[in-house]
Amino acid sequence: MASVLKDFSRLCLHTMTTRPWNIEECIRHYSHAGIPGITIWRNVLENRDLKEVRKQLRDSGMQVVSLCRGGFFPSVNPVKRQAAIDDNLLAIEQAAAIGAPLIVLVCGADKNQSLERSRDQILEAIIRILPQAAATGIKLAIEPLHPMYAGDRSAVNTIRQANDMAEKVNDGHVGVAVDVYHLWWDPDLKNEIGRCAAGNRLFAFHVCDWKVPTVDFLNDRGLMGEGCINIREIRSWVEDSGFTGYNEVEIFSDLHWAEDQRAYLEKIQQAYLHNT
Amino acid sequence: MASVLKDFSRLCLHTMTTRPWNIEECIRHYSHAGIPGITIWRNVLENRDLKEVRKQLRDSGMQVVSLCRGGFFPSVNPVKRQAAIDDNLLAIEQAAAIGAPLIVLVCGADKNQSLERSRDQILEAIIRILPQAAATGIKLAIEPLHPMYAGDRSAVNTIRQANDMAEKVNDGHVGVAVDVYHLWWDPDLKNEIGRCAAGNRLFAFHVCDWKVPTVDFLNDRGLMGEGCINIREIRSWVEDSGFTGYNEVEIFSDLHWAEDQRAYLEKIQQAYLHNT
Repeated sequence: MASVLKDFSRLCLHTMTTRPWNIEECIRHYSHAGIPGITIWRNVLENRDLKEVRKQLRDSGMQVVSLCRGGFFPSVNPVKRQAAIDDNLLAIEQAAAIGAPLIVLVCGADKNQSLERSRDQILEAIIRILPQAAATGIKLAIEPLHPMYAGDRSAVNTIRQANDMAEKVNDGHVGVAVDVYHLWWDPDLKNEIGRCAAGNRLFAFHVCDWKVPTVDFLNDRGLMGEGCINIREIRSWVEDSGFTGYNEVEIFSDLHWAEDQRAYLEKIQQAYLHNT
Repeated sequence: MASVLKDFSRLCLHTMTTRPWNIEECIRHYSHAGIPGITIWRNVLENRDLKEVRKQLRDSGMQVVSLCRGGFFPSVNPVKRQAAIDDNLLAIEQAAAIGAPLIVLVCGADKNQSLERSRDQILEAIIRILPQAAATGIKLAIEPLHPMYAGDRSAVNTIRQANDMAEKVNDGHVGVAVDVYHLWWDPDLKNEIGRCAAGNRLFAFHVCDWKVPTVDFLNDRGLMGEGCINIREIRSWVEDSGFTGYNEVEIFSDLHWAEDQRAYLEKIQQAYLHNT
């Protein structure tokens, strides 16, 4: 079992976790709270000068862990597939501009075609954007999503599938993001985390919790400790495999977004120390 | 690919699919519509003389395919675990009384303990009720449930896990129920259906559809054709494996339950012919 977390040296927050805050507020409040890592969602970069964002990040001393999110590749419509490629090339530019070393891929799915066809298109698309990512020094993390999103958000639903796909690409710039919310139920999780890390493909580790009951398919995630996920045990698997990166807190929650975000930030830090 | 279904000779309806109807209405309307199979949920047996129900079933000419549902075995509380055993023994009595050859097990989960512990308790419980089932000639089908139910409804979330568990028990009375709603996303589904059937453990096949978007975790299933599941392809895997049982329509849907149930029954039959 992983040891208890005693400080915030490996804590990273996703800007989407405090959705009501803009990028300036995220940087100011996170850094003031002693949180060293930030994963930036693209929505907070809209209408911003990325050079100015990068300067704020540098001045704050924060480390950009990743940019969320690329992906959404599959479609029955080739025009939409090309638009997705273009958008992911733009994401690579944005990541380079703000100093993000990694882009997380929510791979996508199209209900109007088979999962196999969507998976083929995902693989093709990753191979198409890879040269630009490699040239810019940006890594790409395939994030397997919970099977409840297979109809619309990702045809990659287990870590084994993500490992298989990353192995097929077989390039040091393509790996996997492990999110406990999506993967906690999987009896193969421990083994596949080991396999992923052994191939130097474990690029990111995301935490939150699964509430019982969960009442919304998107925005009812729990703060660590509010649900039933064995977060500390999964963290032990990740750390025992050699991972030394950040523990990224990524929570979509209408309930928590309705709270005062500074009070919520304190709750997150307590939950990080006691339930992660 | 499985051939198109041309008649209703292998159609079975779950009474829960037409939830507003009591058992008498289910028997009357299903048999009048030429539907030969019925899977009976225990709620419609409350306050009924089971001998009388059996007589109605016999008079209608319908075949009882299974009783739903047993299971819900795991708990941190041993008193509750014993109560679950007792309830499953009662279900075996009920199945025998109405002439159901099979009980479907929704295995259960307890958010207050690990999935591994819940799985151990499920296996222990099945072994405990097995002698009574065998003595009564009732089979038990482990139904793997979608991973979105791992927190509260089942710690068995893939067909591989169900196959593994059934193989451990290694008794002809214990097999697996395959429901496309729970398993359609699984890249191992075809192989594991083959494995299940090769061991003579494929006991039941349930169909409905996965709507995009799905807005409720329990009662927003789709009629076949309303969603994105490759139902006919999965049916081909099931049939190619040698399965000759019923195609059981099991749909929980607040939307469809609000319709006139006789009009809905006609829709089900059309969806069965055209989208199953």
